[in-house]
Amino acid sequence: MAKYVYHFGGGKAEGKAEMRNLLGGKGANIAEMTNLGIPVPPGFTISTEVCTYFMEHDGAYPGGLEDEVKSNLRKIEKIMGSRFGDRDNPLLVSVRSGARLSMPGMMDTVLNLGLNDNTIDGLITRTDNPRFAYDSYRRFIHMYASVVMDVEHHLFEEQIQARKEKAGVKLDNELSIDDLKKLIADYKEVVKREKGAPFPEDPEEQLWGAIGAVFRSWNGNRAVVYRRIHNIPNHWGTAVNVQCMVFGNMGDNSATGVAFTRDPATGEPRFFGEFLPNAQGEDVVAGIRTPLPIDKDDTNPLADQSLEATMPEIYRELEGIYKNLEKHYREMQDIEFTIQDGKLWMLQTRSGKRTARAAIRIAVDMVREGLIDKKEAIRRVEPDQLETLLHPMIDPAINAKPFAKGLPASPGAASGNVTFSVEDAVRRVSGGEKVVLVRLETSPEDVEGMKAAEAIVTARGGMTSHAAVVARGMGKCCVAGCSAIRVNYEKQTFEVDDKTFRAGDAITVDGSTGSVYEGSLPTVDPVLDDDYHEFMSWADEQRRLRVRANADTPEDAATAVKFGAEGIGLARTEHMFFKEDRIPVVREMIMAKTRDERVEALKKIQPMQREDFLGVFRAMDGRPVTIRLLDPPLHEFLPKDEDEIRGTAKDLGRSVDDVRAAISALHEFNPMLGHRGCRLGITYPEIYEVQVEAILEAAVIAKREGIDVQPEIMVPLVGIKQELEQLREMIKRVGDGVLEREGVDVPYLIGTMIEVPRAAVVADQIAEVADFFSFGTNDLTQMTYGFSRDDSGKFLNDYVSKGVMPRDPFESLDWDGVGGLVSIARAKGRETNPKLKVGVCGEHGGDPKSIEFFNREGLDYVSCSPYRVPVARLAAAQASLG
Amino acid sequence: MAKYVYHFGGGKAEGKAEMRNLLGGKGANIAEMTNLGIPVPPGFTISTEVCTYFMEHDGAYPGGLEDEVKSNLRKIEKIMGSRFGDRDNPLLVSVRSGARLSMPGMMDTVLNLGLNDNTIDGLITRTDNPRFAYDSYRRFIHMYASVVMDVEHHLFEEQIQARKEKAGVKLDNELSIDDLKKLIADYKEVVKREKGAPFPEDPEEQLWGAIGAVFRSWNGNRAVVYRRIHNIPNHWGTAVNVQCMVFGNMGDNSATGVAFTRDPATGEPRFFGEFLPNAQGEDVVAGIRTPLPIDKDDTNPLADQSLEATMPEIYRELEGIYKNLEKHYREMQDIEFTIQDGKLWMLQTRSGKRTARAAIRIAVDMVREGLIDKKEAIRRVEPDQLETLLHPMIDPAINAKPFAKGLPASPGAASGNVTFSVEDAVRRVSGGEKVVLVRLETSPEDVEGMKAAEAIVTARGGMTSHAAVVARGMGKCCVAGCSAIRVNYEKQTFEVDDKTFRAGDAITVDGSTGSVYEGSLPTVDPVLDDDYHEFMSWADEQRRLRVRANADTPEDAATAVKFGAEGIGLARTEHMFFKEDRIPVVREMIMAKTRDERVEALKKIQPMQREDFLGVFRAMDGRPVTIRLLDPPLHEFLPKDEDEIRGTAKDLGRSVDDVRAAISALHEFNPMLGHRGCRLGITYPEIYEVQVEAILEAAVIAKREGIDVQPEIMVPLVGIKQELEQLREMIKRVGDGVLEREGVDVPYLIGTMIEVPRAAVVADQIAEVADFFSFGTNDLTQMTYGFSRDDSGKFLNDYVSKGVMPRDPFESLDWDGVGGLVSIARAKGRETNPKLKVGVCGEHGGDPKSIEFFNREGLDYVSCSPYRVPVARLAAAQASLG
Repeated sequence: MAKYVYHFGGGKAEGKAEMRNLLGGKGANIAEMTNLGIPVPPGFTISTEVCTYFMEHDGAYPGGLEDEVKSNLRKIEKIMGSRFGDRDNPLLVSVRSGARLSMPGMMDTVLNLGLNDNTIDGLITRTDNPRFAYDSYRRFIHMYASVVMDVEHHLFEEQIQARKEKAGVKLDNELSIDDLKKLIADYKEVVKREKGAPFPEDPEEQLWGAIGAVFRSWNGNRAVVYRRIHNIPNHWGTAVNVQCMVFGNMGDNSATGVAFTRDPATGEPRFFGEFLPNAQGEDVVAGIRTPLPIDKDDTNPLADQSLEATMPEIYRELEGIYKNLEKHYREMQDIEFTIQDGKLWMLQTRSGKRTARAAIRIAVDMVREGLIDKKEAIRRVEPDQLETLLHPMIDPAINAKPFAKGLPASPGAASGNVTFSVEDAVRRVSGGEKVVLVRLETSPEDVEGMKAAEAIVTARGGMTSHAAVVARGMGKCCVAGCSAIRVNYEKQTFEVDDKTFRAGDAITVDGSTGSVYEGSLPTVDPVLDDDYHEFMSWADEQRRLRVRANADTPEDAATAVKFGAEGIGLARTEHMFFKEDRIPVVREMIMAKTRDERVEALKKIQPMQREDFLGVFRAMDGRPVTIRLLDPPLHEFLPKDEDEIRGTAKDLGRSVDDVRAAISALHEFNPMLGHRGCRLGITYPEIYEVQVEAILEAAVIAKREGIDVQPEIMVPLVGIKQELEQLREMIKRVGDGVLEREGVDVPYLIGTMIEVPRAAVVADQIAEVADFFSFGTNDLTQMTYGFSRDDSGKFLNDYVSKGVMPRDPFESLDWDGVGGLVSIARAKGRETNPKLKVGVCGEHGGDPKSIEFFNREGLDYVSCSPYRVPVARLAAAQASLG
Repeated sequence: MAKYVYHFGGGKAEGKAEMRNLLGGKGANIAEMTNLGIPVPPGFTISTEVCTYFMEHDGAYPGGLEDEVKSNLRKIEKIMGSRFGDRDNPLLVSVRSGARLSMPGMMDTVLNLGLNDNTIDGLITRTDNPRFAYDSYRRFIHMYASVVMDVEHHLFEEQIQARKEKAGVKLDNELSIDDLKKLIADYKEVVKREKGAPFPEDPEEQLWGAIGAVFRSWNGNRAVVYRRIHNIPNHWGTAVNVQCMVFGNMGDNSATGVAFTRDPATGEPRFFGEFLPNAQGEDVVAGIRTPLPIDKDDTNPLADQSLEATMPEIYRELEGIYKNLEKHYREMQDIEFTIQDGKLWMLQTRSGKRTARAAIRIAVDMVREGLIDKKEAIRRVEPDQLETLLHPMIDPAINAKPFAKGLPASPGAASGNVTFSVEDAVRRVSGGEKVVLVRLETSPEDVEGMKAAEAIVTARGGMTSHAAVVARGMGKCCVAGCSAIRVNYEKQTFEVDDKTFRAGDAITVDGSTGSVYEGSLPTVDPVLDDDYHEFMSWADEQRRLRVRANADTPEDAATAVKFGAEGIGLARTEHMFFKEDRIPVVREMIMAKTRDERVEALKKIQPMQREDFLGVFRAMDGRPVTIRLLDPPLHEFLPKDEDEIRGTAKDLGRSVDDVRAAISALHEFNPMLGHRGCRLGITYPEIYEVQVEAILEAAVIAKREGIDVQPEIMVPLVGIKQELEQLREMIKRVGDGVLEREGVDVPYLIGTMIEVPRAAVVADQIAEVADFFSFGTNDLTQMTYGFSRDDSGKFLNDYVSKGVMPRDPFESLDWDGVGGLVSIARAKGRETNPKLKVGVCGEHGGDPKSIEFFNREGLDYVSCSPYRVPVARLAAAQASLG
């Protein structure tokens, strides 16, 4: 006969950790603890096979299940010495779901099952706490009726509201015991009215009702959407765990607590936790009473009330258990326990959440302790977390409340005075102030202001908005999409609720959490300690993918090298164009009426670009530097507002109408799909020629200084072989011309970005004239989906919440679609050019889940913003480990 | 020993038509004519192998070539009785290129070679025309010196200019014989000064110079770019044809003429041509003298001066030749001949250009005559030409000069009074006027005005601009991108040069040629005769691809059926939204603040849409109708100018600020990649629900009327399986709901457009929830290339002229890139859903070259604008024939 129910308790369990598919994660884990000899409240798990049967047979159970449940219930009673439905010593149970993968909050739970008008007396006697008992009963009726019987939630809310009004109180916990008793009667009345039958008093009936409800909740709306989003198959089903309730509030001999087996903030190997005597689990979390320390740390003023001091035996038992658990799981554990009437019960153990600093310390310590090997250590640290190590944070001792929250667009924390424009920012900074740039949104024209600022706040835009991307590149903290603030440029203010902030007011920005605070809060600087360096060296040994950085300036390049970058994968030449002393010359070039006029203007730009490149080459000595030729459409460089238009006209000695005509002539309906990238290079070859000349002249100077210079010239937005073929001829002609003229040999590569879907489809043709491909996955994502990054915010949230897509494809690479094109391009490219170097320079180059894909696809390197380099190094190592 | 030179002349040739690779097209064709016994001026062809040798050996010739050329020259002399370099009877030759494929004008030619200060006397004597002889000599020096000796062209222009000033004349042909003699001396002086050596007098030296120049011109700039564009391999090389010159101006016994073997305008089987006695070929073309008819047609007042009347023997010889040629080539021929001193020489024969009407008549006649079979007949008509048959044209008897030219965006001709706005257009038309809508460019808001107008002219935009696409769909003639006109909406005028046209002025538009004329010109209506219908029935027998039409209204649908459409492949629901009586309700819907408000507005739209669909179903009885759910971004429906904004606010009882806020909230940076297509359906399911309900309700009514209704509901812009999966569920729920409620069964399909690159990459996933795919190749091209159709005009011309791409990918499908995705999508889609129906509904569905691709890819149907349906039918038949 088939077995459907698995017992645990009394020191032994029929299941174990490996039986996760059959018992669900929770059931398997409880069984494992039980078998380790750890005291766990006894209970049983009904297997996922029953769920499958239940779904396929319209809510019927397989034969024999009822008997199995009954006999397992008897086992619990025997272990606990209590009885289901007993008035004196009633057994109460919880009924919980438990799927193969955790689906937190998606399915139903019933607690305190077994309570009725009889057993309530036993609970009162055993807890000596009638208020708690009646409140538990009330909650049980409410929970059971809505979860199992489908009585609408709000009907109970209305009753409690009415009862509070009658009693003249505002809060639930101000109701008297008598009020609670009346409320229980009210609740039962609601059930009777709605369902035409009384609330079930029979504990067995309650139990089967709850089991069925949990199975049904597998196909509830929330659960179905969750599974769709996370690609969890419907046929897996959930298990049901029925477990004895234990109470930490049965007197001074009872308690409840939570603990970590190591310090979750620092990673220090010490037992760290809190408990409350005579309390329930919620009380510890709720923070109404001050929890007491677990161990007798002399520095703690509450040391003499610690568990170690007050219940030394229990403390020693707990110490033994936590050491056992950590050794067994070879991982820092987050445990929950309850002491009921002098007996310790373990309710949960799981991997503990920790800061990045603690994660590294624990991983390194555990290797030293022989618990895990280096590979396992690498797996233990969440790459995304690493970035928090590299930035300042608000002093954890400070307890401030943010006045607004937005997206944590670029991590770190900083304070400064509010400013709304580039000019004001620069003026204030040159006067010695620190500033925070607050904008509706930013554009390339704001880059100088962003550089001057300590932090950036925008009212609009998402995680991949201009502000977010540029701030991450600069390592500045940024909160984007902070929609609570209403910016008024004219008045030079922003408002939140009814508070007004003016230019010059101090605020503090926490880009790691998305919070914005009033005033200047103290921050703590990051320290990269020896553990960090040792840990990262292990990661570097494991990884196959090279990691480069996207950096446009010598300063960014130096930061990138400090964080371990092995080259520059993307140096954007246009960021250099926006510098204040250059933009007039760039505008002169754009507004040139003839090729000759344009060449004149370009001649002024050339030496500036040469200096830029030279600085970057010096910083990257011995490492490859990929320089992308001009990419954005020219209209991005033209002035936007009236003042600027007049200023530009004056600077260039042209009429205002002339400037307006140029702006209008360059206007585009869809600039993302417009006249940009190599299309500029084909139409105005002179622009690219000047850039190539500047690159090679800088390389010659660097080489003469003894620097090992490795330029890689990258042509953006190629979609047609002939584009790259013609530009390659031009680059060779100009580049080799410089080297011959100077009599210096500098080998250099010529390649292209793959960011237009067509380039991927015809990659075999393009690879014939390319030394390297670099995937520009931002643009490739935009064009593959047909999503404009600037506009898709309007519906992408909807898409994620409705389960159309699991996550924003601009944050993490879409493996099937965009990834499919990456895969096609890599394969076709290497087909005609086996030596082709292939990398990634889009934002995804710093995203761990995307790096996993790039590693699998056999790419040579990823490139990301300097502050993501350590993240990418670790993610690449984890990807290598598989 | 290798053979490099191939003789022709005197009734026999060493080459033949099949030797095109070795002798080039021209050489092979001359040889063929010679072998047919047709009198061709003798000469010889130097093979393409010599060109290859020449290129590989730095301009050297293979051994033995010189002797071969010499002995072939002797053969010509013998046939002609003249001698190369002879003072009395000099042999003059032409030296021409001739590649495997025609590369018109790309390589060099030298005429009258053999002239020098000696042989000029012979030419004078023989032609009795010293002016002609000296002019020929002058031209020869100019041509030879610039082509062979690289003397700059403008130096000769300067000389002739100076000589004319000295003589006090304005035109070249006003120079006296004496002036010409002096000019010859001037030219020789230029050559001596520039090259440091005299102009070569030795005919042999001249000959070898010319041969080398032609070979070198294979690698000239123009030829290289041409080959790059047309994918012609460099190694093919060109042949060189050296042929005896003959002259039609040697007296009254000489003449020159051109003729067609059938009437090129009507296809009537009669010999049709013109000649001029005592004249050169250029004279016929130049139109200075009035040419005489060839045959003695009694209706012609010049019949007694015809060739038939004046040189009856030559006429009979010519008659024999043309019949022979037509029989041999089984094709209507365009021939050139010269009569020198009573002897007939054939200079050229090639397939004659003809009108569409003539093409069909000739093809059908030739089948009847047993010259060709039906398959060959199908191949003989250019599909693109067919469209001209379907539209009115300007009366060919009228000889008017257009005041402006633009792109021939939609064929046909029509007259009307100028109007600049929808309102004015509608007002004038309701007052009985015919109007031509003149706009800078059009947008969906102008559709009503376009409908009211006879024709459309825009100052901006290309062949695939909104105006062009919509006009073609409506079958209205349209000239787009007519940049010579300067439109001023405020003054209600447009200007061309210094002429001003006002609203109400009559103009005539010829959309087949792109010309715009002043006043109302008479037009001729199209007639589809029996030959046309018979010919099209042959095409229909051959084709595998089904042909549908893109049509949004019952009228368009009826036109489509008339032209042979087998269904509707794309009915755009948004065009219905723009109707004047609907747009206010649509705006009410868009500006709704809550879902309920939106549903209210949609309820008003529903019956209107139902009526639209019903009309289309009635027109398409028995044929499938694919209806696309709402596609454009909502902001397209909002007002743009101030007046309209105020009007909308008033209509909706909202504040002007409210309307402005809605416009600003919906503004997008890249609308092409924005919130549109199925993204609207996901965010606002109620919009699609109403459309689906209207479709199925219309289907029910139609079915009850006894109509065979076959609806196919198409979801636009799908890129993710879940998009279609969720919308499919909705469509089934609403659609089946209607059918159940009405108790009527109408089978319907649910499918999607493939227009986002991602959809192609994950087509296997999407096909699991689709009954059909329809490629939206317009958008697919935009996103695959990253080209915005609205913006790419700025650089696409440059791209084509620089050889980056062979042609505009919006006009003809890009086989490699966009086609590559089509191929991937078709294969992947059929993999998971073998019954998947696959078609095309983008503009490419009416382009023959694209249809060839779609046929090869095994698609089921193409869909195009109604007036392209016959084109598509014929192109599909030709594609089937391969």
